[in-house]
Amino acid sequence: MRMSHYAIGLDYGTNSCRSLLVDLDSGEELGSVVFPYPSGTLGILTDPADPNVARQNPQDYLDGMVTIIRGALEQAASNRSDFDVAGVIGLGVDTTGSTPIPINEAGTPLALTPEFADNLDAHVWLWKDHTGHAEANQITELSAKIRPDYIARCGGVYSSEWWWSKILRCKNTAPDVFKAAYSWIEHCDWLPAVLTGNEAPERAKRSVCAAGHKAMYAKEWGGLPDKEFLAALDPDLAELRDRLYEEAHSSDVPAGKLTEEWAEKLGLPAGIPVAVGAFDAHTGAVGSGVKKGTLVKILGTSTCDVTVLPNSEGLTNVPGVCGVVDGSVLPGHYGIEAGQSAVGDIFLWFVNHLVPDSYGTTQDEKFIEMERRLSGTKPGATGLLALDWNNGNRTILTDVRLSGMILGQTLHTEAHEIYHALMEATAFGALTIINRMEEYGVTIDEVVNTGGLAVKNATLMQLYADILGRPLKVAASDQTCALGSAIFGAVCGGSVSIEEVQSNCCQMREVEYHPIPENEEVYREIYVLYKTLHDAFGTSEWSGKLDHIMKDLIDIRKRQRA
Amino acid sequence: MRMSHYAIGLDYGTNSCRSLLVDLDSGEELGSVVFPYPSGTLGILTDPADPNVARQNPQDYLDGMVTIIRGALEQAASNRSDFDVAGVIGLGVDTTGSTPIPINEAGTPLALTPEFADNLDAHVWLWKDHTGHAEANQITELSAKIRPDYIARCGGVYSSEWWWSKILRCKNTAPDVFKAAYSWIEHCDWLPAVLTGNEAPERAKRSVCAAGHKAMYAKEWGGLPDKEFLAALDPDLAELRDRLYEEAHSSDVPAGKLTEEWAEKLGLPAGIPVAVGAFDAHTGAVGSGVKKGTLVKILGTSTCDVTVLPNSEGLTNVPGVCGVVDGSVLPGHYGIEAGQSAVGDIFLWFVNHLVPDSYGTTQDEKFIEMERRLSGTKPGATGLLALDWNNGNRTILTDVRLSGMILGQTLHTEAHEIYHALMEATAFGALTIINRMEEYGVTIDEVVNTGGLAVKNATLMQLYADILGRPLKVAASDQTCALGSAIFGAVCGGSVSIEEVQSNCCQMREVEYHPIPENEEVYREIYVLYKTLHDAFGTSEWSGKLDHIMKDLIDIRKRQRA
Repeated sequence: MRMSHYAIGLDYGTNSCRSLLVDLDSGEELGSVVFPYPSGTLGILTDPADPNVARQNPQDYLDGMVTIIRGALEQAASNRSDFDVAGVIGLGVDTTGSTPIPINEAGTPLALTPEFADNLDAHVWLWKDHTGHAEANQITELSAKIRPDYIARCGGVYSSEWWWSKILRCKNTAPDVFKAAYSWIEHCDWLPAVLTGNEAPERAKRSVCAAGHKAMYAKEWGGLPDKEFLAALDPDLAELRDRLYEEAHSSDVPAGKLTEEWAEKLGLPAGIPVAVGAFDAHTGAVGSGVKKGTLVKILGTSTCDVTVLPNSEGLTNVPGVCGVVDGSVLPGHYGIEAGQSAVGDIFLWFVNHLVPDSYGTTQDEKFIEMERRLSGTKPGATGLLALDWNNGNRTILTDVRLSGMILGQTLHTEAHEIYHALMEATAFGALTIINRMEEYGVTIDEVVNTGGLAVKNATLMQLYADILGRPLKVAASDQTCALGSAIFGAVCGGSVSIEEVQSNCCQMREVEYHPIPENEEVYREIYVLYKTLHDAFGTSEWSGKLDHIMKDLIDIRKRQRA
Repeated sequence: MRMSHYAIGLDYGTNSCRSLLVDLDSGEELGSVVFPYPSGTLGILTDPADPNVARQNPQDYLDGMVTIIRGALEQAASNRSDFDVAGVIGLGVDTTGSTPIPINEAGTPLALTPEFADNLDAHVWLWKDHTGHAEANQITELSAKIRPDYIARCGGVYSSEWWWSKILRCKNTAPDVFKAAYSWIEHCDWLPAVLTGNEAPERAKRSVCAAGHKAMYAKEWGGLPDKEFLAALDPDLAELRDRLYEEAHSSDVPAGKLTEEWAEKLGLPAGIPVAVGAFDAHTGAVGSGVKKGTLVKILGTSTCDVTVLPNSEGLTNVPGVCGVVDGSVLPGHYGIEAGQSAVGDIFLWFVNHLVPDSYGTTQDEKFIEMERRLSGTKPGATGLLALDWNNGNRTILTDVRLSGMILGQTLHTEAHEIYHALMEATAFGALTIINRMEEYGVTIDEVVNTGGLAVKNATLMQLYADILGRPLKVAASDQTCALGSAIFGAVCGGSVSIEEVQSNCCQMREVEYHPIPENEEVYREIYVLYKTLHDAFGTSEWSGKLDHIMKDLIDIRKRQRA
């Protein structure tokens, strides 16, 4: 009897990291451990003076690594008596992004050196750090002027969430940190570099997913943006380019082999391959069985929408999406990424700040009671309409200088009704993304959902089905991002194709959500109002009248309550 | 030594009624009792299917009358050993309005007859009942077409809160009640009629305040709207006109004398005069010392703004205000009434529905803690902007088919910041009213505030001073509406002028609120944004762009937090 083969995927999220140990033949998930980052508030270092600041402590990542891998191995041993760690053939890692880390010449994050231990700007610049919005505008404008190809590839607007905005912002506001940083590395590239002893910046293998979607990297123009472009932003950025990287890779390429030192810390066989890192959304799509025509939605604190198109089909750019990058999801395919800056985060904000204890004393109790009171609520019956922009708009407006909005409140509006409107708003945002993709020839035949909300929130899922007007599936694994990383670990570790591992490991849940025709119809009507507000507050092209909005909502409310 | 003279004022509010017994020489307030209406929710009968419904039980008014008058007399006796009830020389009554009551031929409210005791439509149609918005539109349109004078006098738009909208609504949706109603009477006219034994519709003296502001009554066109106009709305309204009234009076005119029966119930001398009733806002203005150039703001669940202009000055109509009526506040003056449909009600809605218990467990604790956390908050520092339309907009848009709105939320926005934005929104609404009055020649030199919020909420008052850009005074009495009614009772009961009693009884508190110049400046900037949203969502004339709004608010927030 041949030995079972396993792979481990590590998924570094916004507030915690988690592991998944999977049997590559059966798809059985044998171990999974979560480690909440201990630093800051829910793992995020903030600045009370500026809500745009979101940083992390890199030490949290290393501490978590040991806990989640050792924990998963222990669970596997307890779940299966014949589990043999020697069967683990590879390791993959995914993280949030763009989440750049300033590092010294040895590749050590500045935040882990005594000199910068207390300096917030020397820490990890988390994806949701929005301090660089002025810099993002500068990059968008310059690129539109002198390098239109660069910006067209990222959807037409460069975001403050991305690589160059953050590094340029650091140069502008923390020049001491910028100067001390020999180089910068994505979180998803740093961890494989550490595990494989390739921390030196020139040795660390870089992710094409991160490079292509966030750093304007493309083979057609020789990798990263050219020096003339970078110098026009800031001469120091042009110099930095020499200390970054020339080439970036898909995650089917190994970043190196696990060092003796880390093998011992983690309890894994030394020398197993560690895949080139990738972003969580992209591995999540792989772990959800992404293929042409399948949109994978990862519904979490924020949302990523990922799909692929064989690169033989010669896709045009899609304005407003976060990027179209060759190999960023699957080798041989364009990876197309879009997303919403806050989805679960909006619900968490609301439940934590604005829901009274008459709904329950804990966050979970409050959600459950709100869903209970919403049972049977018809579309439009609340009379409310919201914009899902509390954390800006990533797709299709690519603008962090937007904010939340809700209208239609009466003196009777209750918390659960506002929660309903917030859920609807995120669904309208999701529909806006799908509509944009389809306008540019990326047809979406099915939607597969993954992430905490897809599994836990049936109210939300039905509402998404009604608003997206498509049946929704839910991936079976609770850990599709980690599963995708494990799949790349497996591909690096053995002679097996991605499709083979996907077909063994990527299953769907039984539950599917189908649009209810009468709800779909009302939501089509309300979406017109949403899109009007979206365009009015979010675009400089719109011009028109809004005095019908409140009255239309009142008419719909009356009809739906009758 | 001559006997002291007293008068009693009764003030019937939205959720309760209260009395005030005042010494007419010293202005000393010797007794005051509150009676919360026992029926419904906080005294209001609602319909879960329609948030526009707001009705009351007339029995609550009668039950309250006995409690609050007897209670005030007992307090007076206990406060002053030589108090003699024989010194009470008159009684005045004010109520909310337009609050019409369907009555039978004897003048008994239908709701007090067995047949209609359980019929919501046969109850009192409270001022804030907004079911008649379609009827209000019909009246506005018809009047604009065939009787432009009528509608010009009420500010250009007839409101669903007013007399004819409600009666026509009743005809349309509860024809049985309409048919059973021999006539209709305002709440403020019904109580004096009951007390003086003049309940029969043809005997009840009617308030020019109610008639002129809400029922399109004016001497110039022969009283109520003519039959041709009413018939064009509904032939049954034209017939009803014969069973209403021909003449309406200022409150310096007695409605009659207190009957033996009621004198005994109340413990008052029989035969003392009862003044013609008026609306609470108007007597509140009198009790706050209103005169030319003084705007009195009554800050309560909703807000009324009242000022006067000697009728020799020949005022033009002011578009959007609730009316300009000769004698409605002071004899010989035009009374000018404006107002906001919800102010305190918005704060109550918010605290009761959306403030978590981390701020405290009771409503009061929550308000106190929110104010504590707001201490030192600079204008614009929350980044939020709201519209104060949760209950529609009474002035200057006169449109109940509007709703609340708030924008600028991030993932960090907290409940007390939203409360701040809601307070600001009501102040911006107040400024919009003053601006409109001044555009039409009604200069406002000083603002005197009264009502619960003026006394209790110093945060709100400072914010109003900053936003209105004028110093604010606060009337000394906690019961200016009741005081104004007592003043009219006194005037009916003795040979004394309104000015004399006002000068004895209407004092100001020591505290005054002065605009802080740097706050005033920022609020001028934010008001431009408020007015843009106000016009965009509230008027059919506006057309333009809104994409700057969120960005301007973010810029101001950044500056104010720095």
